[in-house]
Parts: sequence; C-alpha cells; structure tokens
Amino acid sequence: MTGPRYTPLCASLPATVPFVGPETQERQRGAPFLARLGANENIFGPSPRAIEAMAKAAADQWMYGDPESYDLKQALAAHHGIAPENIVVGEGIDGLLGYLVRLLVAPGDPVVTSAGAYPTFNYHVAGFGGQLHTVPYAGDHEDPIALFAKAAEVDAKIVYLANPDNPMGTWHSGADITAAMEHLPERTLLILDEAYVEFAPEGTAAQVDINDPRLIRMRTFSKAYGMAGARVGYALGAEPLITAFNKIRNHFGMNRAAQIGALAALQDAEYLAQTVENVAAARARIDQIAQANGLSTLPSATNFVAIDCGRDGDFARKLLSELVSRGLFVRMPFVAPQDRCIRVSAGRPQDLDQLELLLPQAIKAVQAG
Amino acid sequence: MTGPRYTPLCASLPATVPFVGPETQERQRGAPFLARLGANENIFGPSPRAIEAMAKAAADQWMYGDPESYDLKQALAAHHGIAPENIVVGEGIDGLLGYLVRLLVAPGDPVVTSAGAYPTFNYHVAGFGGQLHTVPYAGDHEDPIALFAKAAEVDAKIVYLANPDNPMGTWHSGADITAAMEHLPERTLLILDEAYVEFAPEGTAAQVDINDPRLIRMRTFSKAYGMAGARVGYALGAEPLITAFNKIRNHFGMNRAAQIGALAALQDAEYLAQTVENVAAARARIDQIAQANGLSTLPSATNFVAIDCGRDGDFARKLLSELVSRGLFVRMPFVAPQDRCIRVSAGRPQDLDQLELLLPQAIKAVQAG
Repeated sequence: MTGPRYTPLCASLPATVPFVGPETQERQRGAPFLARLGANENIFGPSPRAIEAMAKAAADQWMYGDPESYDLKQALAAHHGIAPENIVVGEGIDGLLGYLVRLLVAPGDPVVTSAGAYPTFNYHVAGFGGQLHTVPYAGDHEDPIALFAKAAEVDAKIVYLANPDNPMGTWHSGADITAAMEHLPERTLLILDEAYVEFAPEGTAAQVDINDPRLIRMRTFSKAYGMAGARVGYALGAEPLITAFNKIRNHFGMNRAAQIGALAALQDAEYLAQTVENVAAARARIDQIAQANGLSTLPSATNFVAIDCGRDGDFARKLLSELVSRGLFVRMPFVAPQDRCIRVSAGRPQDLDQLELLLPQAIKAVQAG
Repeated sequence: MTGPRYTPLCASLPATVPFVGPETQERQRGAPFLARLGANENIFGPSPRAIEAMAKAAADQWMYGDPESYDLKQALAAHHGIAPENIVVGEGIDGLLGYLVRLLVAPGDPVVTSAGAYPTFNYHVAGFGGQLHTVPYAGDHEDPIALFAKAAEVDAKIVYLANPDNPMGTWHSGADITAAMEHLPERTLLILDEAYVEFAPEGTAAQVDINDPRLIRMRTFSKAYGMAGARVGYALGAEPLITAFNKIRNHFGMNRAAQIGALAALQDAEYLAQTVENVAAARARIDQIAQANGLSTLPSATNFVAIDCGRDGDFARKLLSELVSRGLFVRMPFVAPQDRCIRVSAGRPQDLDQLELLLPQAIKAVQAG
C-alpha cells in the first residue's frame, strides 16, 4: 500500500516544532521545573475577574463559541477606538499568523524578517512555501529601515517586525516605527507584532491609520493579560484584509470560555496596571541578580529580560543547559550574536529566588567544565 | 495604495462561513432563543468532573497548553488500545480536517464526498483549491461503495465519510464499512468522521487496522462528551500520517483548560453512559412530537433527529423559518431530497417542551401562508 499522497510542498517539510514545551522537558528530565521562566508566560496570571468568568463558563462549554467573537470584538473596538470591522479574533497570534501567511504567501513568494526573530512566524512561512529573507539586528534591536529596504529589494509580500522585540526585549518608539514606514513599499504588508506592547513605555504602540492597507497589528491576551493557555489573540487592520480572514479561518475555532475570559480581562484595567508593575519589579530583580553574578542585562519593554552572558553562544548554551538541568526553565536566542544571551521571563519573587540560587551554581559549573 | 497581494487561490475564495452561529441569529432577531437545538451541541453538558477540572484550571491559564497533549494522548491511547503515536489531538475535528486537507490537497486535486454532507469539510477543500466530486446519498444514507467507486474513478486523494452521518443521523455498521473498504483505492485516504459514534449502537465504530495507511478516523469531545466550546478533537491513524500533522499544525494551539477537561471527561465513563441514555430518551420524545404533528422521523444514531416534513425543501425551509422566528434554534440539510427534513438536536425535557409547543404553531403558519 502506498499511503497518503501529500502535496509536494508538505512532503518537503520537516516534522518540526518551533519550541519544545516545558512539559516535554520535564518528562525528559524526570522532574518538574522549580520555576517556569522560559516561555514568556505571565505567571502573575489572569485577572481574578477573568478567572472567575472562565470558571463559571466551564459548565457552559457544551455550546460552541460565537464564531464572530462579537462581544469581545465590540469591547476591543471600544478599547482601541476603532470599528469592530477592523478586528479579527483568533486562536492566539500563532493562529492568526498562520492564517495571514496562508492568505498571502504562495510557494516561492518572498517574505522578510529579522535573523533570530520569532520562529513561529518562520514556521508558517516555510509551511506555505514562502522564501524567507532575513536582515540582521542592528545591535540588539530589530532594524525597521533595513527590513523595509530588504522588502523593497526582494518585493516582499510580507515583512515581519515585533515591537517590542522577542527574544531581545528591546523596542522602538511608535514614532520611529511610523517614520520608518515611509520606506515601507506599497505592495508589502507589514505585520507589526505588538504582543508585548502593554508592558512597554507609553508611546511604544505605533499611532497609525487603521485603514492603511500596508499594515496589520497583532495583539494578544497571552502576555500582559496572563492568559497564554486560553489562546486568544487578535489583529487590527484595514477592513478588506480583516474580512479576508473569513475566507479561510476556522470559524468555530475559538474556545468559548476563553472568549468570555478575555472580555473580563479586558475590563479589568486595574489588574493589568498591577501586572505591569509586578513585571517591572521582576525585571529589576533579574537585572540585580545578573549584576551580582558579573553579568549584565538588556533594557526590556517586555515581560522578560535578556541576560547578556558576556561571551559567545557556546558559553551561553552551556550556561542555559546548567540552569535547565538544575530545574530552571529558561530559553535563549537562536542566532549570533544575540545567542550570547539567556532569556528569563518575569516571575514572582519565589521564582526569581530560584534564579538567584541557581545562576551562580550554573556559572561555576560551566567555568569548571 | 494597492493593498495586500493575496495568493491567486485566496483571492478567488469567497468570504464565507460554513454555518451562521446562533448568537448571530439572536442578534438579528433581537432576542435570545428559547431553546438551542440547531448545532448538535450536547446540552446535557460536560461531566461534572470535567466542569470541575476546567474551572480549577482557569487560574492556571497563564501557562501554554502542552503542545504534545501528552497526558490526554496517553489516556486516549489506553482508551482505544493503540499507541499514542497513532493519535493527534487538535482544535476540534474542524481544525484537524483543515490540517489534513492542507497536507494532501493542492489546487486541482480531486476529493470525494457525499452531496449534502458536512459543509466544513467542503469549506476546507475549497480553501486549498481542491476539486470536489460528490456522490448522492442512497436514500437517506451515505453510500460507501459509491463513494469509493467515485474515488477510484477520479483518483481522489481524499474521500470523506461520516458514520453516523450528519445531517441525517443515519449509520452503517462498522462491518459494512470495513467490507466496503475492499473497494477503497490504495491511493485514496478515507476520512472516517466518527464524531457521533459514542451515541451509536455497539458495532458502529469500524474495527480497522490502525496501521492501514488508507484510513484516518476523527473523534471529538464536542458531541457525546458535551464540550463543543472547548475545542478538543483527535484523529486516529497510521503513525506516518499522524506524524505529518507536526509539519503544519499550530503546536501551541490547544487551550490548556480544555486539555485538562477532556482528560477528566474521558475518565468519567459513567456520565457518558448517562448522557447517551438522556440523548436516546430525547430522540424518542422528538419522534413522539413529530408523530403527534403528522410528521415522521428518521432513525438516528446521533444526538439529533431528522424530522421528515413529508414534502419538498420549500416546505421544510418555510417550516424552519417559522420555528426560528418563534425562538427555536434548529437547522436543516442543504441538499435535496434530504432538505425535506429539519434537524433537531437532542435537548432536555424543557427544551423539547418548546418544540412541542412551537411545532404545531409553525406548521399552521406555513399552511396558512
């Protein structure tokens, strides 16, 4: 028997995963992690109102979620001062990136991103056969002008830019982004991934015309709202592009309790502000711990901090390995020279106590090895 | 400005939705439905253990779900007596169908289904440019031998068969399915959608070699387990095909509380048995109500009943419209001659009281109009 006949594209793809999950690592090491600081999850968690709403919605999970996410879109529209028609809600930014790449990218189509930027975007581009062109970081920042110049050079259908950036945590002002957009080709769609923007200083979110057809922005309840497990993301853009998602999206793909929880989370601005404070305090503590161990950190506008290990990628990889084997779930950038860093998510005091305890042990082990 | 450059395929697709949700209809009519019996949701709801597990998991939604759905797959493997490597968990059968079509179907590739079968499958086939060939029902049953003959004739990459069937509720014995599979071409993948199989008589699930590369089976927690809003489906098949999902699926797409709830639901066999009894009683009551109004019903192995309105599609559509306008959410098959029927999901006694009250009014209104 011959078996299924895959498309030539899918036959050519590797069976891969953008990130190995912490549960997989725990199964491999045979013990749970002492602190879960590797996936930029927000351990300060959802708003109590969101928790209550989701708990209450559990008994109603016999109903499909509203395929239009109507109530959530209405609230998001009011929150952003735009029309519901400019918003599409989806299964996290990951899901929305997949839909968007599918809408635009046919095999061989050029796409531009930064070398070392979000791997899941690259996964989707590869999955639809796109031709990925990369631009190096400028120092530890993504480089909008270079990205847009590359987009013009290769006639890219999409250019991806995260602001603030992951995995480095660095950021540009919204004004710098909009100024750089003067160099964005008319035929290229900019995906501005603002997953972490609620953590960033005032003015980081780009002030743009929602009807600009060259731009779509990605937002999420996974980070500042502390609901990564719920899978609720949304995109903001011009109505024709937003409507186009209806051609291909999984209309009944949203978890009903997650829709309800996101709505409740959005309405608790006070808790969001408290989380942003908690995260800022955690970033300061990570910096203190790094400095106490002779390392430095990069400024961050996110819920994680890149600790600069001060040497090359091999050193940082060894240090990462020592931390992980001691029970600290952390990750690091994939590409040099950013791979000199280790990325630590903001945690509660008890989580960062583990970092404080284990970092010197890990450094010692690497130096001894 | 020119706007985003869609792929030729996506540019050609309509912005569509396989089903209009009941919430949309409620907004249009300006009032909530009195009974929600149109989407084959299971109003008897999740197991209390699943509800408790999901409610308890709400506070932990800050964590991403395990991308491997390891615990759930282990339990499913034990439940089905197969290996975890033969199972992929995804965002409902709808999500898994989308991935599967993407893996196999390139523009122009032939696919076979029954005229009037599940529209969301057709939506995915159209979304990847497949060429859909249809076979009529044989009476009110899907026709496996005719489906497989058509698959041979057009050299189909996929043939879709639901057993039990939606929207008619009819079914074949598993033995008849496996016998018919002797006519299934070696180069065609059979998607056997068993979404409703837990409601069906013993022997309806096909007993097949899990390693048969011509077959993949779809199962869900949306129907008998009463968790449509959670979005947890799974597919059973040969390991190479199951592994291929890892090339393209949204690895971090599963809602974490839903994973936990599905595991709890699977472990409550007693509640499942009770639901199946409740549903059987509801089917009998729907039949009684139909008969009291001079109508008949089709035998059903699902949680819904097709009421045969005894006349043509126009009559049934008018009757449906009268029921909906009176506050009863129901749907009907799309294709003649099955469109002489109205499809009513199993409900609690109080839901079916509404059917009992409104059906004669609706019939009278149609006859008067």
